[in-house]
Amino acid sequence: MEILIKQEVLKGALQNLIPVIDKSSAKPILSNFLMRTIPDQNMVEFLATDHELSLIERFPAEVRAEGSMCVNARKMYDISKEFVEEEVRIQSTEQLWIHVSCGKSQLRLPSVDVGLYPQTLVEDLSGKVSISTNDLKRAIDMTLFAAQTNESRRNLMGVNLSAKSGATRWLATDGHRLAQILISVDSLEMGDVEDVIIPRKALGEVRRSLELFGERVDVSFDERVMQFSGENIVYKTRLIEGKFPNCDPIIPKDNALICSLDRERLMNSLRIVSSISAEKLRPVKLTLSSGKMLLESEKTDYGEVSDELQVEYASEDFQIGFNSRYLMDVLSVMEEENVKLEFKNPMSPTVIRDVEKDDFLSVIMPLRIEW
Amino acid sequence: MEILIKQEVLKGALQNLIPVIDKSSAKPILSNFLMRTIPDQNMVEFLATDHELSLIERFPAEVRAEGSMCVNARKMYDISKEFVEEEVRIQSTEQLWIHVSCGKSQLRLPSVDVGLYPQTLVEDLSGKVSISTNDLKRAIDMTLFAAQTNESRRNLMGVNLSAKSGATRWLATDGHRLAQILISVDSLEMGDVEDVIIPRKALGEVRRSLELFGERVDVSFDERVMQFSGENIVYKTRLIEGKFPNCDPIIPKDNALICSLDRERLMNSLRIVSSISAEKLRPVKLTLSSGKMLLESEKTDYGEVSDELQVEYASEDFQIGFNSRYLMDVLSVMEEENVKLEFKNPMSPTVIRDVEKDDFLSVIMPLRIEW
Repeated sequence: MEILIKQEVLKGALQNLIPVIDKSSAKPILSNFLMRTIPDQNMVEFLATDHELSLIERFPAEVRAEGSMCVNARKMYDISKEFVEEEVRIQSTEQLWIHVSCGKSQLRLPSVDVGLYPQTLVEDLSGKVSISTNDLKRAIDMTLFAAQTNESRRNLMGVNLSAKSGATRWLATDGHRLAQILISVDSLEMGDVEDVIIPRKALGEVRRSLELFGERVDVSFDERVMQFSGENIVYKTRLIEGKFPNCDPIIPKDNALICSLDRERLMNSLRIVSSISAEKLRPVKLTLSSGKMLLESEKTDYGEVSDELQVEYASEDFQIGFNSRYLMDVLSVMEEENVKLEFKNPMSPTVIRDVEKDDFLSVIMPLRIEW
Repeated sequence: MEILIKQEVLKGALQNLIPVIDKSSAKPILSNFLMRTIPDQNMVEFLATDHELSLIERFPAEVRAEGSMCVNARKMYDISKEFVEEEVRIQSTEQLWIHVSCGKSQLRLPSVDVGLYPQTLVEDLSGKVSISTNDLKRAIDMTLFAAQTNESRRNLMGVNLSAKSGATRWLATDGHRLAQILISVDSLEMGDVEDVIIPRKALGEVRRSLELFGERVDVSFDERVMQFSGENIVYKTRLIEGKFPNCDPIIPKDNALICSLDRERLMNSLRIVSSISAEKLRPVKLTLSSGKMLLESEKTDYGEVSDELQVEYASEDFQIGFNSRYLMDVLSVMEEENVKLEFKNPMSPTVIRDVEKDDFLSVIMPLRIEW
């Protein structure tokens, strides 16, 4: 194999691959990436996988000899990003040494037998969703924060995708809070499955790389795997096995105490009131009365803080506690100027929505507050 | 004590104090700062110390009742930076509670008896140097990188200041490399001392806060302490006890093999050639021949890298090794386009200078290379 490739292209390709590469050294083969020429096209394919998530990218290059190679991704990236000349020449030898040169810079790296690297095949899968890049960005941003981060319940460590009234429903929960967004798409075909659970890492990587997809992303899946495809890029991930819980009964339908207020101002007050707390989840008490919301920290030896906000609220006086971390998480991904909090009582889940748009909602369990 | 102070001013004042505050929790009193009104002036003084380094700042405020208070710096900062209204009211009570309010935000913090907080007095000291802020910045940047970071030789953990031919000499070394800069100043009075050793932390903090000093910094010192004074700011630090080694014999005078080259290009090549190394100090071999410098990494199972640079060099062919980390450190603080390397032989210290200016030099011990 021998190619000439632009330094910027090589650097970009490797930069995308690095986060997919397995960080643990348990399987040394996974610290490598695979590069191969596409027959009869002046293109090379880059491939990295950690067995769960794979990335396949194609970039233009001048192919002088067809072939493939498998080489350490981190080393190749660390060096190629420093190259100053425009063009990089990469050549493999029969002795499994890779020669790389750029201007006067010369590099010789050991490589691995290509046959040892796990294969990733792009498949034709029966589930298909075509979604605009912007909508996919929103689907991920508005739900991923609520997915579980620890391994105690693996089926909650991702975002649940299903169909609802002809739209896609994206849903995540960690048992303390839930986030759901409904997004209409041009075409939606669930194939043989009712719903799937997409792992956090895959969504995080796709989100980070969205600008590589162009305007649309073709999502395809079956009960095992999901592919996110653009013109010259495919992320393929295993799906999380297991059943996602039915969250519909948890989403309150009749919360009648409704308060709307400025989102940024609420975030600012939460930061003020929670800043003194030594606890990780930073409990805060909200007291609602006509037109006003009082926020208070617990009174401790370390001190106490309170803040007061103008709000739209005309129902009965009412008091409720929350982990302010959970409120902050959802408020910080929302985009509108005003948000609506819908309460029922101090023990029941509270709903947070945009005031204008109704495609998104988040549910947060309150915190029992005895101060 | 009761004052009204601008939120921006309070936030800025605390932001400066935070890095001085002791990070360890060994002495809880040192997590606090002291604030006191200046009698008959609408000014407040902020003071923080870790016993080694102290910062005293003065800012305008509306003083409603004279007094002083001592309160947790981190908490006060975390909250006050979130305040949105312009003016903050701070009031102490006899029960040692501090009341802080800004708009509708209310805060109550416990405070500490002011008498328990260590005093820092600004003194009149016999050693005096008046230096422009820009020159002090250069003095610190061009030397501090070479000071020792570990405790094995405490007398090397700072920058040595002395007088040489009417100028100030700033010098640091860790035994492997040395950096020295001579800076002319308007007034220079060493008082009762020949030289002093200024600790790393003090220089780092002064460097970070230089824009608060205005155009000049008045440095004053005796054998125990040093003060860096601006109009409304003073850093006071203990000096490092002990004798700084006489470095003059180490600085080569007759290195005759002279090579000059582009500084950025050399840094780039060092990054390329050292990027493959698994060792922390990243050894590199330089081979000089007429007009050329070849840089090579060690040949290992992990691969090998080389790069070649155009240089001005007309002496005999010559080979020498270095820890590329040490070369990078000095090259990255230098400012000119071209640098000069002065060699004698592969075992002797090498000198690095600017091609134009002659006020700075760095000396690096070569590395015995057997490949």
